[in-house]
Amino acid sequence: MQNLLNNITDVMTQATERGRVADYIPQLAHVDPKHFGMAVATPDGQLFTAGDATMPFSIQSISKVFALTLALGKQGDGLWQYVGREPSGDPFNSIVQLEHESGKPRNPFINAGAIAVVDAIMMGHEPKEVLAELLSFVRYLAGDDSLFFDHEVAESELKYKHRNASLAHFMKAFGRLQHDVDKVLGAYFHQCALAMNCVQLARAGLFLVSDGVNQASGSRVVSAQRARRINAMMMMCGHYDGSGEFAYRVGLPGKSGVGGGILAIAPGKASIAVWSPGLDQIGNSLLGTRALEMLVQETGWSVFGH
Amino acid sequence: MQNLLNNITDVMTQATERGRVADYIPQLAHVDPKHFGMAVATPDGQLFTAGDATMPFSIQSISKVFALTLALGKQGDGLWQYVGREPSGDPFNSIVQLEHESGKPRNPFINAGAIAVVDAIMMGHEPKEVLAELLSFVRYLAGDDSLFFDHEVAESELKYKHRNASLAHFMKAFGRLQHDVDKVLGAYFHQCALAMNCVQLARAGLFLVSDGVNQASGSRVVSAQRARRINAMMMMCGHYDGSGEFAYRVGLPGKSGVGGGILAIAPGKASIAVWSPGLDQIGNSLLGTRALEMLVQETGWSVFGH
Amino acid sequence: MQNLLNNITDVMTQATERGRVADYIPQLAHVDPKHFGMAVATPDGQLFTAGDATMPFSIQSISKVFALTLALGKQGDGLWQYVGREPSGDPFNSIVQLEHESGKPRNPFINAGAIAVVDAIMMGHEPKEVLAELLSFVRYLAGDDSLFFDHEVAESELKYKHRNASLAHFMKAFGRLQHDVDKVLGAYFHQCALAMNCVQLARAGLFLVSDGVNQASGSRVVSAQRARRINAMMMMCGHYDGSGEFAYRVGLPGKSGVGGGILAIAPGKASIAVWSPGLDQIGNSLLGTRALEMLVQETGWSVFGH
Amino acid sequence: MQNLLNNITDVMTQATERGRVADYIPQLAHVDPKHFGMAVATPDGQLFTAGDATMPFSIQSISKVFALTLALGKQGDGLWQYVGREPSGDPFNSIVQLEHESGKPRNPFINAGAIAVVDAIMMGHEPKEVLAELLSFVRYLAGDDSLFFDHEVAESELKYKHRNASLAHFMKAFGRLQHDVDKVLGAYFHQCALAMNCVQLARAGLFLVSDGVNQASGSRVVSAQRARRINAMMMMCGHYDGSGEFAYRVGLPGKSGVGGGILAIAPGKASIAVWSPGLDQIGNSLLGTRALEMLVQETGWSVFGH
Repeated sequence: MQNLLNNITDVMTQATERGRVADYIPQLAHVDPKHFGMAVATPDGQLFTAGDATMPFSIQSISKVFALTLALGKQGDGLWQYVGREPSGDPFNSIVQLEHESGKPRNPFINAGAIAVVDAIMMGHEPKEVLAELLSFVRYLAGDDSLFFDHEVAESELKYKHRNASLAHFMKAFGRLQHDVDKVLGAYFHQCALAMNCVQLARAGLFLVSDGVNQASGSRVVSAQRARRINAMMMMCGHYDGSGEFAYRVGLPGKSGVGGGILAIAPGKASIAVWSPGLDQIGNSLLGTRALEMLVQETGWSVFGH
Repeated sequence: MQNLLNNITDVMTQATERGRVADYIPQLAHVDPKHFGMAVATPDGQLFTAGDATMPFSIQSISKVFALTLALGKQGDGLWQYVGREPSGDPFNSIVQLEHESGKPRNPFINAGAIAVVDAIMMGHEPKEVLAELLSFVRYLAGDDSLFFDHEVAESELKYKHRNASLAHFMKAFGRLQHDVDKVLGAYFHQCALAMNCVQLARAGLFLVSDGVNQASGSRVVSAQRARRINAMMMMCGHYDGSGEFAYRVGLPGKSGVGGGILAIAPGKASIAVWSPGLDQIGNSLLGTRALEMLVQETGWSVFGH
Repeated sequence: MQNLLNNITDVMTQATERGRVADYIPQLAHVDPKHFGMAVATPDGQLFTAGDATMPFSIQSISKVFALTLALGKQGDGLWQYVGREPSGDPFNSIVQLEHESGKPRNPFINAGAIAVVDAIMMGHEPKEVLAELLSFVRYLAGDDSLFFDHEVAESELKYKHRNASLAHFMKAFGRLQHDVDKVLGAYFHQCALAMNCVQLARAGLFLVSDGVNQASGSRVVSAQRARRINAMMMMCGHYDGSGEFAYRVGLPGKSGVGGGILAIAPGKASIAVWSPGLDQIGNSLLGTRALEMLVQETGWSVFGH
Repeated sequence: MQNLLNNITDVMTQATERGRVADYIPQLAHVDPKHFGMAVATPDGQLFTAGDATMPFSIQSISKVFALTLALGKQGDGLWQYVGREPSGDPFNSIVQLEHESGKPRNPFINAGAIAVVDAIMMGHEPKEVLAELLSFVRYLAGDDSLFFDHEVAESELKYKHRNASLAHFMKAFGRLQHDVDKVLGAYFHQCALAMNCVQLARAGLFLVSDGVNQASGSRVVSAQRARRINAMMMMCGHYDGSGEFAYRVGLPGKSGVGGGILAIAPGKASIAVWSPGLDQIGNSLLGTRALEMLVQETGWSVFGH
């Protein structure tokens, strides 16, 4: 495995076509596209790393997996009255579907759905409390108390909030958000500004590898059924309107973020985190996807084979 | 397994809410919604059946899996210039996406995409030849030369062809079909009119269980990679705008048909066919899905767990 | 004319099917649907009134005509870089078209377009100044210094702002608003909260009857070409996705508001204001439209005849 | 008037930017973009012509005005159960709106609507009979028995029928066409292949100038109300998603065709036909529109002024 990661990292480091770094906020636009990191954590506690695996980056939409887990813990299946579980077929920030379907977002991973999930987590609490809870939860998942919110990123997101503010107000107009729009957005932008490195991210995903149990720590995080269902949502919607492509090429449940990170789960095998800041046209990490494709070809870890 | 199938069949036989039988052609509208059949074929050659497992039904859109396999064999990755591989987020017979994306269908399992796949298979041949080849291929997959096209169903489909004719002419207007619209539709309607029973269908799916090899017969049908990719397409798009729901509840690649059949693949474990004619609002078998959900809960066969 | 207005008012007063009063804010929801008023002002200074012609109501979207006139005065044809001039074919508060067309609203009378017009009027000024200017302009048009903003209505609109806030943030995300979203919305809601009665409204429309000159006061408000073009926009887009119906039945340029008012212009003949609070499904005054239909049938004032 | 037409023709003949000739069928693609013709017919029997006013061209969608008139004569207001009367906001050949609104076209001038109108005219008759009736009607309107269907154009349209065939089959799937799709399309393509020159076209429009009476011949064609309503439809929908622009710049009810012709009606004043084969991006005659704009600026014939 270590050799494989080294090989992949060599290939990716030398790649000339690296995609485009997200540029809607300065904090992301200034990240060096040359970075590449990867970490593989296995249920038996092994960890393999390569490249910039310990350099923190903005996990952005990958945080939606942790928020969804938290929301299911609080609302159970009741969560699905606020958000659907189908691929939308539209870009991550599209609002068209909301108008056609009375303001109910298609799934928890498009922006509108993730905002609805934050609202569902809040349950009357202030953003500060919610964020503390989320941070605590992700630290527990990762087994690492050093991970943090990058407040500068959050502030910048807030400044360029308008597309997400549009989604939130639209849902609010249909009575689909319980809390104040600005509070929900504040919490949402902080959630997305979670900074993690590949090692932390791979470890945080371990509970999805082993049917809800983090084997490294021995603790059950969610039921087996819930873990499988979260994986299902990642598979179906984790890469927005590039989810089909990711399933076709990689064949694992995965969630991407515009910071260039991807968390992928090989059930029973490993939790994999990869980071390369350059994005493809849809907004998923270009080399991150290619790295996972190489990994899966060598290991045969696709959920669609055996 | 046999006990489990018996239990599931008992539950499904007694269910009062059975969905609505497809009614757009008389041949489907007259099928008794009380039917229920199921078959599980394993790579080591075992077969388990229950209920009406040997009664032929119209497999309809399940045939799209076999057509896709044939088309990939002929066109390789070149097929994807004619059809995409993303969930559409729209109903199976929607035309909206075609207008927004220059007549290129999102995936091979919505109607427009399946029509494009038939066109890609034809390669200058007449419908009759294409259908002979397809029939021969499915008979080979199922190891059963008795399966047949139900010409009466095909004729009836042709009579009520207008929605599909609209899709085909739209693609033709964008230069996306190489052959005459009426010929493509003729082949498509016959393909959908393939009559199979659960046993035949489960056996025909075995090559997708074992990375492209039909272990029962020992023959390699497609490469491992291709088998996985076909499974990926089934997972992402096999139940149209109910694919997310199917992934969430069942967690297996699957393809449904309006005849009430579903083919589901548990990689490394089994090929499963189920038939119950009543459909949910999206057009997928209501009890078929519930039966698979029960099966998976007992066996733990979800690809999202281990 | 007076007899005709009396007859129309009799018919409308006795009508049992009166439509539904707008209910998205309490101030509109509590208006008595029994009200009916009408005023006809002619270029030679005559005024005919009937029913509740001097009772003030919330003119709501009719204010968009005055705002458009002001914006054209400030920006000239440059205004059309911010807003189109085509019917949208969608409801007044739809956001779908904005996503498909990079945040540029189709016309100045749908909500998104009207918000863009307010932004174009502001030109760096504070909402307070802009509103003072608008109020002054409408008072000048109506020749009546007593008309006023209903601040209670404006406050209530602000409270239920979310659909419009969504539109504004969406446009802001595409760089289509120059000013702060909250300031633009504040000005927009006050503009819509202008309270006028039928007499004031009919008089304010006189400049559109006589090619830009208010014959009653003798003052030229806009050029002949501009007056005609504003009429054209009213004809094409003044009743949202009911504009075709209004053109078909009434045949005059007109602008409706959810307060139940309609301003209609018969070029060379008269400016007509009608008020009946009950709305049809699209959001236009049900009896107001019928009253205009009766008026036109008797007077032959359709622009499509001679 | 003659001087004005001469001036306009001079300007248009020298224009270098002439738009793009329709190229979807060879018969239109081969027309010389240098042609320009114009004719103005007045109710008192005067006729003014300039340029290629007597050269026949394919009137294409302008024929929809005559077909609508015929359909209203046969079906009365019952026609509106088959087709709406609102601008669609979409291109002339769009199918999106049909899917969203159960296959009912928005108005009689987009292609789908015009196909529905042909179906409404047929009333059980064969295409041949319908076309004979239509030809006879237009000859009567124009007072000229020499105008004819260009069968070569019709055949070519039939060959490139697919976009329109898609629309027709879609409506048929929703039960919105009473007759066989191929027969309806055959009649529709012939209708569009009507060849007329500007003189014939201007004369054929005279009944819309004088409230339903062709003053030149003294015969009443339709009631005053119907004439006004047809004008209203032309104003609202006659230039597809460029109707707002035409109303803004020209201010007259008008109908364009991809052959480069436009028929415009100045109620009480004149019927105007103009022909210049080059089209703008939306599919309306580029110089034809500019010529009408010049004409209206000089004559003040806008319906929005007085």
